[in-house]
Amino acid sequence: MADIKEYRKNIRDLLEEIHGYDISNSDSGIEGQIIFDTEHDHYLLIDVGWEQKKHVYGAIIHIDIKDEKIWIQRNNTEINLADRLVEMGVPKNHIVIGFQSSFTRQFSGYAVG
Amino acid sequence: MADIKEYRKNIRDLLEEIHGYDISNSDSGIEGQIIFDTEHDHYLLIDVGWEQKKHVYGAIIHIDIKDEKIWIQRNNTEINLADRLVEMGVPKNHIVIGFQSSFTRQFSGYAVG
Repeated sequence: MADIKEYRKNIRDLLEEIHGYDISNSDSGIEGQIIFDTEHDHYLLIDVGWEQKKHVYGAIIHIDIKDEKIWIQRNNTEINLADRLVEMGVPKNHIVIGFQSSFTRQFSGYAVG
Repeated sequence: MADIKEYRKNIRDLLEEIHGYDISNSDSGIEGQIIFDTEHDHYLLIDVGWEQKKHVYGAIIHIDIKDEKIWIQRNNTEINLADRLVEMGVPKNHIVIGFQSSFTRQFSGYAVG
């Protein structure tokens, strides 16, 4: 039985930690946004703003909870989010690497879907 | 004085309406997600999933409320979100087109920031 409340806390802690590293929060015109939608279980980090005359927009991390599993939908960092969630106590078969094809997922050691 | 509670409702109504048009919610493997973060005032529509062997990920709309103004950070639709918000009663000087440069914003009729 998945402990969804605990999973929510794990994801939140992880995103807050990574948000803390985000240099875009320093002096630049780029805002590193932390987005928690607890109503639909979507959790994101997004960079948005202006670097001089260049508009910057990018989803850095996107994690969902659906059907009692944690779906990593996007990861534009070098941090292995799945490994970090396992360290926090989430079982591998409750984690789906959504940005990998379902074929590849079979060999990942994580859940297929 | 900005009526933030009313602005939140306006944004929500608008995103729910546009989400309803989203054909990605039909039979395909792409999920059109509606994301409401009322804690940090971020409101998004994101498409995520798989179209056969192709991974699809894209932020369609991203709207924030900050400093009592509505910031349109991203709009990948043909719908003029600013116009729609004005129709809903939001004053033009409470809307910022964030994806336009602050130079361009001066001539938009909307707020600069």
